[in-house]
Amino acid sequence: MTKVNVYVTLRESVVDPQGIATKEALKTMGYNEVENVRIGKLIELELDGSATEIDARVKEMCDKLLINKVIEDYRYEIGEVAGK
Amino acid sequence: MTKVNVYVTLRESVVDPQGIATKEALKTMGYNEVENVRIGKLIELELDGSATEIDARVKEMCDKLLINKVIEDYRYEIGEVAGK
Repeated sequence: MTKVNVYVTLRESVVDPQGIATKEALKTMGYNEVENVRIGKLIELELDGSATEIDARVKEMCDKLLINKVIEDYRYEIGEVAGK
Repeated sequence: MTKVNVYVTLRESVVDPQGIATKEALKTMGYNEVENVRIGKLIELELDGSATEIDARVKEMCDKLLINKVIEDYRYEIGEVAGK
């Protein structure tokens, strides 16, 4: 079984209200060095298959279900094969 | 300015309804090789400061605001210093 981490971020052009609110909260708490905050998703998948199969299938899963391609970008990392 | 990625995941002991629903949807679409799905958060911070200052401050921000320590774990990566 292999672990894959998918990192989903809002496109730069998309306003991130959650990120803005978090930045304001941090500044209110005194963390004035914070210039920008963006909130995205981390999707952790555990799946079977060879590295090449997994690469193709993860791309498919992202394109078909996991990612909203209108507003989101994504990248993923295929980890080492985890024991059963 | 330095970029820091904070990876927030639900503790293993916490049920992840969003992850379960995503897994079921993927299986319904024919991705039967998927054994497990966990959904977490990716928080991208851009902030000023030296590496040691940033390390201490990010830990503080996580402990005080960004992380719900009852149900979440986190790790973070301090990136290279990004140009202004």
